[in-house]
Amino acid sequence: MELPSYDPDVAALMQASDDNQTGIPGYLGIRTVDVGPGTMTAELAVRPELLNPFGSAHGGTLAALVDHTLGAVLYPVIPRGAWAATTEFKLNFLAPVREGVLRARSEIISLTKRTAVVRVDVSNGERLVGVAQGTVTISAPKGEASAT
Amino acid sequence: MELPSYDPDVAALMQASDDNQTGIPGYLGIRTVDVGPGTMTAELAVRPELLNPFGSAHGGTLAALVDHTLGAVLYPVIPRGAWAATTEFKLNFLAPVREGVLRARSEIISLTKRTAVVRVDVSNGERLVGVAQGTVTISAPKGEASAT
Amino acid sequence: MELPSYDPDVAALMQASDDNQTGIPGYLGIRTVDVGPGTMTAELAVRPELLNPFGSAHGGTLAALVDHTLGAVLYPVIPRGAWAATTEFKLNFLAPVREGVLRARSEIISLTKRTAVVRVDVSNGERLVGVAQGTVTISAPKGEASAT
Amino acid sequence: MELPSYDPDVAALMQASDDNQTGIPGYLGIRTVDVGPGTMTAELAVRPELLNPFGSAHGGTLAALVDHTLGAVLYPVIPRGAWAATTEFKLNFLAPVREGVLRARSEIISLTKRTAVVRVDVSNGERLVGVAQGTVTISAPKGEASAT
Repeated sequence: MELPSYDPDVAALMQASDDNQTGIPGYLGIRTVDVGPGTMTAELAVRPELLNPFGSAHGGTLAALVDHTLGAVLYPVIPRGAWAATTEFKLNFLAPVREGVLRARSEIISLTKRTAVVRVDVSNGERLVGVAQGTVTISAPKGEASAT
Repeated sequence: MELPSYDPDVAALMQASDDNQTGIPGYLGIRTVDVGPGTMTAELAVRPELLNPFGSAHGGTLAALVDHTLGAVLYPVIPRGAWAATTEFKLNFLAPVREGVLRARSEIISLTKRTAVVRVDVSNGERLVGVAQGTVTISAPKGEASAT
Repeated sequence: MELPSYDPDVAALMQASDDNQTGIPGYLGIRTVDVGPGTMTAELAVRPELLNPFGSAHGGTLAALVDHTLGAVLYPVIPRGAWAATTEFKLNFLAPVREGVLRARSEIISLTKRTAVVRVDVSNGERLVGVAQGTVTISAPKGEASAT
Repeated sequence: MELPSYDPDVAALMQASDDNQTGIPGYLGIRTVDVGPGTMTAELAVRPELLNPFGSAHGGTLAALVDHTLGAVLYPVIPRGAWAATTEFKLNFLAPVREGVLRARSEIISLTKRTAVVRVDVSNGERLVGVAQGTVTISAPKGEASAT
């Protein structure tokens, strides 16, 4: 789809700031692999600690990676200072994940000033293991009329 | 809804095993507060480490808690040794979460031998902050015909 | 949940205007059974014409009834002239529908000036046959700042 | 994705049987435009009768078209006599539809013996107006072990 603008400096900044992540993205060790105009790829290593007693990665691992890439893909295409918050998403788990790398690619499907719809494909090696679709709400930078 | 059976011993075991959780549930410190026939309540403390740079809990925190309670609510009502795996869910975020306790209550809405539909309400203090709905696939215990 | 206002005249008008419905609601013969503050119940008769070759109601019948009640429940609680448009929903089908009445009850779970999250339960006689959850975007009346 | 088999005769039969459709697909005049291995395209004309009082197509129109293409795309790739039933889907509405043709393209993302995950893109002329993602449950032909 056509995007109103794309700020490669923001994209570069996202990749540079992986080491400063807090909370779940930090715990999971999510790395930004690629950021393009309307797309983003991030991944994490499925270390043994992330497995449940059945030997599969907890569903929350995949869900957190999806949530992260759903919102973050917006930053290079919205005004600096604006805030992208996931307001809803739906996720289908396609196959269990036991090892290797979990890689999510998100793509903006639709974009207005206030809202975006984004799809995410999550793969584990060659295998597609999850697909998601969700909505991101964009809040204007402080000082401008709020979008909330 | 009417449930085919309910095993209170499994319910008790779930509450007793919180300290042995691995992966995201362990990292988040999810505690099983209550397990009943077809319902379950779990919670986690929103410690500062879980906040993003905007001061809100990462969406993945809520998503992981939802995923956990969606599947776990099944264990007391399915045969011992059977496996409940979330196959899909949808989640709406209603309000940002900044502190306090995040509490999720899941409820089985529909149950067959192979599949269940579950709803989850997530609250933060008095405020409802997330609602979810999803499907859990039930796999028969080893030695019986697999449901996969 | 607490609602900012409730206009019983709008609610009464909704029930009175069932005979003037166009498109799918008219074709399906959707009747508004009850409208309250934040809730709405509508139903349709499952006439033989609505069944597929397998003898079940087409899924689109249930989906259309869900879509209708997701948005319409907003009208008595938003300003006159405002417009409520479903922007997304998720629907689980729980059981096939073969005859009788399909009844949907929607309930507003969360409401701000611009957006609402609504849940819908669909039953067929005593049986729950579908559950849904979705988002409605509220546009301000003409002449005021648009919410789009 | 790789499919276990594809039956072009079933695909041809689907296109030939549009005139015999019952219920909502018949009312909407859904036409099967193309059926391939794992994909399907269907469309309907947005005639004035399908518009709501605001001049847009009822959401149920798009939802019914999505439901139809989600399940029907399975028939050429499952055994003859098997039954494909949508068990859940999620739909985002991206833009209002006022005239012209509504076209849905569905694609199988994941397929096992019992279940498929399918995505649908709905366009109106050049514009993408809806995206969906859902699960289809496959029931074995009569005489074989049922998948339900």
